[in-house]
Amino acid sequence: MSKPTIGFVGLGAMGFGMATHLVQKGYSVHGFDLFPIAVQRFQAAGGIPARSLRESAEGKPFYVCMVASAPQAQSVLFGDEGIVPYLPQNATLLLCSTVSASYARSVAAELQSRGRGDILFIDSPVSGGAKRAADGTLSIMAGGTDEALESGRDLLQAMSAPSKLYLVPGGIGAGSNMKMGHQVLAAIHILGASEAMGLAARLGLDARQTADQIIGSEAWTWMHENRFPRMVEEDWNPGASALTIILKDAGIITTSARQQRFPLPLCTTAEQIYLAALLQGYGPKDDSAMVRQYCTASIASVTASTDDQGSALQLVLDLMLGVNLVAAAEAVAFARFLAVDLAQFYDLVSAAAGASKVFNTKGLEMIQGRIAEKAPRGSQTLDEAISRLETVVLKARDLHCPLHLGSAALNVLLTAKRAGLGAEGATSVIKVFGSLD
Amino acid sequence: MSKPTIGFVGLGAMGFGMATHLVQKGYSVHGFDLFPIAVQRFQAAGGIPARSLRESAEGKPFYVCMVASAPQAQSVLFGDEGIVPYLPQNATLLLCSTVSASYARSVAAELQSRGRGDILFIDSPVSGGAKRAADGTLSIMAGGTDEALESGRDLLQAMSAPSKLYLVPGGIGAGSNMKMGHQVLAAIHILGASEAMGLAARLGLDARQTADQIIGSEAWTWMHENRFPRMVEEDWNPGASALTIILKDAGIITTSARQQRFPLPLCTTAEQIYLAALLQGYGPKDDSAMVRQYCTASIASVTASTDDQGSALQLVLDLMLGVNLVAAAEAVAFARFLAVDLAQFYDLVSAAAGASKVFNTKGLEMIQGRIAEKAPRGSQTLDEAISRLETVVLKARDLHCPLHLGSAALNVLLTAKRAGLGAEGATSVIKVFGSLD
Repeated sequence: MSKPTIGFVGLGAMGFGMATHLVQKGYSVHGFDLFPIAVQRFQAAGGIPARSLRESAEGKPFYVCMVASAPQAQSVLFGDEGIVPYLPQNATLLLCSTVSASYARSVAAELQSRGRGDILFIDSPVSGGAKRAADGTLSIMAGGTDEALESGRDLLQAMSAPSKLYLVPGGIGAGSNMKMGHQVLAAIHILGASEAMGLAARLGLDARQTADQIIGSEAWTWMHENRFPRMVEEDWNPGASALTIILKDAGIITTSARQQRFPLPLCTTAEQIYLAALLQGYGPKDDSAMVRQYCTASIASVTASTDDQGSALQLVLDLMLGVNLVAAAEAVAFARFLAVDLAQFYDLVSAAAGASKVFNTKGLEMIQGRIAEKAPRGSQTLDEAISRLETVVLKARDLHCPLHLGSAALNVLLTAKRAGLGAEGATSVIKVFGSLD
Repeated sequence: MSKPTIGFVGLGAMGFGMATHLVQKGYSVHGFDLFPIAVQRFQAAGGIPARSLRESAEGKPFYVCMVASAPQAQSVLFGDEGIVPYLPQNATLLLCSTVSASYARSVAAELQSRGRGDILFIDSPVSGGAKRAADGTLSIMAGGTDEALESGRDLLQAMSAPSKLYLVPGGIGAGSNMKMGHQVLAAIHILGASEAMGLAARLGLDARQTADQIIGSEAWTWMHENRFPRMVEEDWNPGASALTIILKDAGIITTSARQQRFPLPLCTTAEQIYLAALLQGYGPKDDSAMVRQYCTASIASVTASTDDQGSALQLVLDLMLGVNLVAAAEAVAFARFLAVDLAQFYDLVSAAAGASKVFNTKGLEMIQGRIAEKAPRGSQTLDEAISRLETVVLKARDLHCPLHLGSAALNVLLTAKRAGLGAEGATSVIKVFGSLD
């Protein structure tokens, strides 16, 4: 069966990989980008250059929009030169940009109001980075009508790993909500990796040994393992994953959460520190450079200088365990609030960039409601979690080492304690985020 | 009646002012400091130099310890060269350093265990800065036995303004608890002044006009009015009130709160940003230099550049109103938790450096229990407070302006909302800090 013709806009780091991968899979891909050089590069890689948005859309039964933001998507779709009038009847339109669920829903409404309700629209943000985009092994979270998902499924599958295409129940917006829930964890864990390694350096621990220990422990996060090599090498210019990228994603999440009146204490803390680093000029650098917010020297230059390596390492692990616990509660509570399918949320996150060992165990208990009297026997209590994290925060304070996430996480745990939950399992911290309504 | 002879240790900025003021009042003050130059300066000002700690204590019926920290106090009192063995029987000992209540209580216990229970010990931290120290118009929060307070009263009164000597019920530790509760507000409002003026600059508002508006409004804080002149002049070297000073006080508060498992979301947020600034080399600079964490240019250099000055100014006022509200709740809840006499706490704070218009009105309502169904008619609801602060936080996010306190305060308000308090008066946010036990 011959592959359909595809229109594609947005040939940046992610989009270029996705579009060229489709070319390799045998699709005819007509690519456009505001930067002519990106179009030329795409042509050199075997793609078909489009000279205008209109040309990228006319006669294309499938269209992928992979621009950087909702305002850009709005312009591409509905601007003066926008594609929507040029898409053929019953075209399938994939919005793969990371946007808020409310924006995705506004696109569906505007298609209707402009008389293009025939377009099969899919809200399908992706996750995985430029390399997996080029490999066609992205995680994709796709929401839309059954008819739209049926139509777009092959194309979505062509861009994602076999087990990583998530057809998300809930219609338009559900894909973006799923991605937002995931990015809560990504945004926290990116800063968490720097906070942990910065503290380790301030404690006089060898960076590589400490990272190995973290990776092999319950404190593991996907982001720590992924960012550590660039962090220790100070491989920051230009950033493989620039600070501005996670800052953009964090902004989508926190804006959406604020508008819906939902507190995200750790994600917003991370965002504020990203904004502080932006002010210091770190925007284009890799986000692993956030370690500079904790330690002004290279962490690789630290020579082991503590008598008690074991105790110092335990402090670093306890910091991550405390932060990851509250992060899991925050993400699960937010996903639940957004009416995201939680079983699917777990499948997605536990195999993606937001994963942590703590999410994969304690997060699952929260999702399954196995908390309080239903918590597994022998679970750590909230009081015990507080005691461990408090020790780290006090020690960091003695060292004059900032611990933005550690301090914020401790406040959340203490707020739960003040609500009378101290003797319950530590997973009861999720109750701070309120009930289901 | 002739004035008694006084021993005095700690002739730094505050101590020098206090000791020389006592000299002017006619006391014979024997002053000691680790730095000989401080002793010489004291002698030049009419004081009697002591050549050793021992000499400063021997035969002195009254003794004032005004060193910088608990470890220094411990060394002065009980170290190898410490004064306690040399104080005469029934001497009155004033510990005026800012320390934790638990440290003050440990001093009382150690006096007992060393067989010097005869010493009349007073826990009497001060507030007001170097100028008021030299004027003898400090606020002093004194706790101790009735006998000790009776003995020390004249001396305490000599150092404080007539209405600003607070004899705090609750014995040793009560004075320090009172001071900690006050410093929660001081630590928040110092950063709050910079956050407000930084946002104003990023919004394109004239600094001096904005400050005038703040000072004349419900958003007023003592700290903003006090710090603004140095902030706008960039009069930071050396700091009139160095960052390290509020960082030390914040550390006493947050360490004590953490050890007692009490959450202080805003005070700990402020502390983390102070630590971040310390890492950037701001330690010795005036704490009004914190404005640099929000705006890299001089705020005085901003030329009014917004079309809608009124709306922009309202955002700045709403930021301060939101932060000051949560700060008041945090401080009142913590003071209540510490069993501080709340009526006295109100008297003290509302006339001291921790004051804000919001504390003086809404804080009083919290203290008097006039919240929820007992809130004054027409009170702003929690939902309304959230709506106003959310608008500011979203706008700052659009500008890429950090808003550490604003974001943290919004999280506290949203946590209260998730607990079902949205329709209650905004003062119900104090319920997030738990019940009285």
